Amino acid sequence: MPGPLRLQGISASAGYAEGPLFRLDRTALHYTVKATAADEKAALEAAIGMATGRLGALIETADSEAAGILEFQIAMLEDDALSGPAFAAIDADQPADAAWRRALDAEIAGYETSDQDYFRARAADLRDIRDQVLRALSEDDESAAPAGAIFYGEDIAPTRFLETDWSSGGGIALKAGSAASHVAMLARSRGVPMVVGLGASPANPVGVALLDAEHGGIVLAPSKAEIEAFRRSSSSFAARRDKAETYLARPAVTKVGTAVRVQVNIADPSDVDGIDIATCDGVGLMRTEFLFGKTLPDEETQYRAYRKVLEWAGEKPVTIRTVDAGGDKPVPGFTVEEGNPFLGLRGIRLSLARPEILRVQIRALLRAGIHGNLKVMFPMIAVADEYARAAALLTEEQTGLAARGVAHKMPPLGIMVEVPSVAIAPEAFADVAFFSIGSNDLTQYVMAAARDNASVAHLNSVRHPAVLRLIASVVAFGRERKIPVSLCGDAGGDPASIPALLEAGLRDLSVAPAQLAMAKAAIADVTV
Amino acid sequence: MPGPLRLQGISASAGYAEGPLFRLDRTALHYTVKATAADEKAALEAAIGMATGRLGALIETADSEAAGILEFQIAMLEDDALSGPAFAAIDADQPADAAWRRALDAEIAGYETSDQDYFRARAADLRDIRDQVLRALSEDDESAAPAGAIFYGEDIAPTRFLETDWSSGGGIALKAGSAASHVAMLARSRGVPMVVGLGASPANPVGVALLDAEHGGIVLAPSKAEIEAFRRSSSSFAARRDKAETYLARPAVTKVGTAVRVQVNIADPSDVDGIDIATCDGVGLMRTEFLFGKTLPDEETQYRAYRKVLEWAGEKPVTIRTVDAGGDKPVPGFTVEEGNPFLGLRGIRLSLARPEILRVQIRALLRAGIHGNLKVMFPMIAVADEYARAAALLTEEQTGLAARGVAHKMPPLGIMVEVPSVAIAPEAFADVAFFSIGSNDLTQYVMAAARDNASVAHLNSVRHPAVLRLIASVVAFGRERKIPVSLCGDAGGDPASIPALLEAGLRDLSVAPAQLAMAKAAIADVTV
Repeated sequence: MPGPLRLQGISASAGYAEGPLFRLDRTALHYTVKATAADEKAALEAAIGMATGRLGALIETADSEAAGILEFQIAMLEDDALSGPAFAAIDADQPADAAWRRALDAEIAGYETSDQDYFRARAADLRDIRDQVLRALSEDDESAAPAGAIFYGEDIAPTRFLETDWSSGGGIALKAGSAASHVAMLARSRGVPMVVGLGASPANPVGVALLDAEHGGIVLAPSKAEIEAFRRSSSSFAARRDKAETYLARPAVTKVGTAVRVQVNIADPSDVDGIDIATCDGVGLMRTEFLFGKTLPDEETQYRAYRKVLEWAGEKPVTIRTVDAGGDKPVPGFTVEEGNPFLGLRGIRLSLARPEILRVQIRALLRAGIHGNLKVMFPMIAVADEYARAAALLTEEQTGLAARGVAHKMPPLGIMVEVPSVAIAPEAFADVAFFSIGSNDLTQYVMAAARDNASVAHLNSVRHPAVLRLIASVVAFGRERKIPVSLCGDAGGDPASIPALLEAGLRDLSVAPAQLAMAKAAIADVTV
Repeated sequence: MPGPLRLQGISASAGYAEGPLFRLDRTALHYTVKATAADEKAALEAAIGMATGRLGALIETADSEAAGILEFQIAMLEDDALSGPAFAAIDADQPADAAWRRALDAEIAGYETSDQDYFRARAADLRDIRDQVLRALSEDDESAAPAGAIFYGEDIAPTRFLETDWSSGGGIALKAGSAASHVAMLARSRGVPMVVGLGASPANPVGVALLDAEHGGIVLAPSKAEIEAFRRSSSSFAARRDKAETYLARPAVTKVGTAVRVQVNIADPSDVDGIDIATCDGVGLMRTEFLFGKTLPDEETQYRAYRKVLEWAGEKPVTIRTVDAGGDKPVPGFTVEEGNPFLGLRGIRLSLARPEILRVQIRALLRAGIHGNLKVMFPMIAVADEYARAAALLTEEQTGLAARGVAHKMPPLGIMVEVPSVAIAPEAFADVAFFSIGSNDLTQYVMAAARDNASVAHLNSVRHPAVLRLIASVVAFGRERKIPVSLCGDAGGDPASIPALLEAGLRDLSVAPAQLAMAKAAIADVTV
């Protein structure tokens, strides 16, 4: 029997899980060939119906984000263009499972070789649909995971996540995957431990595994001593999480009484539905990429989305970032294909290259401004000219709204500090209203290590002295010039990084809603 | 008649050209269908023979780099696996041109969708072969460019470059392309003006164009005034280049008498054949990626390559960089596919992940060290631990060589300063023997703008205050700790950047051999 094996990846959703390993890439399904082509067709029709029904049932309990994914998949399943070739192949004497697999594989190949990131990303949905129907075609239920299982494989389908009952524990350990994937976002919001980027797998891992998604690792075939140590870490994590809940309702202060503002990062207006505004100091970062999912959004849709969050926040500030497309956030019809998208035409660069799209967003922001305490910031600013051009667009659109008698309000304008040039030479930005440090991007550029690449994850640390030095110098510059400085990257919600950030002088952090309690608890332990 | 149109791209090889535009993407070839399939086959055979003969003739006058590309293409042309499907299609009554085009397009598609960068890059060679045979099949000679033409299109094939007579001027203007391509390297070494990344094209540019490859632009349909201004710039450039030649033999000094060391960057041992060692202060950067072209090189091959350059340099220093694969330099069987290769597993990161490959290189370097004034440096160092691990490998291999009684010498060890973390917090590297600033990578990380992406080229400037501030602080750190600091990026050979680099305190630049004279001339104009 082989000894224990420890694999290291990247944490995508913190937590601990101990349970039987369930192999996601185990695809041997037993299909019984039918007597006639008519029977094969009936079997395929039934399987498609079963898969559609299963998706429909999942929608019942899904939030709006998950429901969107599921509705897209149902629409695909109901499209004759997808199933037609499979039924035609059955007429040519293929069994239903092979016919369906070939038809879908041909379609998937078309999506995978698309020029557009958007369509390539949809290939995952098609694979998901393919496998659901194949599972429905096979009578046995071998592919059901035991309760509390740790799902292990290349990647995991969103439906697999949604149809799994996580109430009795379990977790996700992926060889590839991304902390920015849909499933990772779902896992974080539901507290399911998840690790990505574990890399090449040992031959045939089986049995119980220990998933440490606080530190991004997994132990296969653990020893007794390892199981005991793991349980201690897991209990400690649970205790910290429970204790943290008691901090949620109180303002954040350090051990020595220093007040720290803690705001939240949101990615969709519906995110605020589950947050009590009394538990945070406002919205430090509202992303607007959600608006750019399938088509370019109109002014009215944007206005309503911004207004909803501003009204929810009342007098507390809501900092909305203009669209940060590109990088790892492609938008069909807007972003471009690039060899190194993180170093490419993204954020404000793209918005200034396509100002007609930014202008629509600006008008919606100016109009929404009358409904609360709005601040607006620009992503990926590298040189002062970019800020000046973006700010000029707000002035122009304000003039237009005023001329038409439309109610509006000019918000304070700030910038993200995420391109190193701004942190190194901030004096060119002495006229902005505020700085918001984007620690994810700043760290990846300072360390030259992509934040979604597991093989350089060991270099990607906000706690490297060079990154902390830049943060401290931006804070010092802000104090000298009376420009508020906050931080809205993932580091702000990471208990292990919070002491170093406060030591660097930060007193304003913006964190994921799920990290609010843990962040406040961590702040209470700091002695600055 | 439309007015003048100015397009801006990236300079890939400085210089000026005025001449008729020749459209590279003009593919209308007139093929006369033959009477029988046998005649079609004979025509295709003749065309393949003609293309092979043309390639063979080019090899006669090609240097080793160009010959390698041409030999690969001839081998492909002579491979029946490539032409077989075309002859089969002729049997099925297709005309030779369509049969050849379809057979090659199918093959090209296979290369283009390969997982391996290496094979995708070879698709360009297959397109080149396809078009050469198609040209040979067509009787007319419409596709010959007039003398002094400016080649304009998406990209240009290496053979097209090699079979063009550049002695009467001309240049290259590409909508896509890359300054790191094979053709760009050839253009620089032969002094052919070339601009890449010009982007989307106007409908049908014709007539005379003005190519300003000093500043990376082209003017289509120029006005008389523009032509006059262009000729003044072009004369001034030629005069500067001629005058610069007078500086070549002398040591570089500024206007006020400050001595500046000027070394050369080389990418292949044969590069030194054309350089008089008396004109430079040594080799500031010898790249070793050339060794990793098709297969991983053995110790003996490397030893001979290093020894050749060390013996050529005599007592002058030769700084050899351990292999910097990855990023934009994929190596089959070594580098990995990544979404953002510039921020990925490259340089020392990759070498430490595959130490058995680095160990071979280290042994070759230790053995070559006895033949001259060798220094060794590591690329892409981000944290001190990487330097320590790489240095430890040298000590280990030295012990091994000593035990076996093999002659060797331990060189001084230094690092490239190209990851911002090192420039921001250099104190972790107080024990290295020297720093060499890699301005290309340092700039692209500080500005978060990929150096091969034309759409963010306006941000990618070594003269941005943030980049110059980092360079100055590294120089100051080096002076304080008595650690020599040089710079080996393209900025070192750029007359427009040299004043700022010397003002930042640098006194040691390493430049492309073709830039040596211009760099020395530019230094003579600086008043520091």
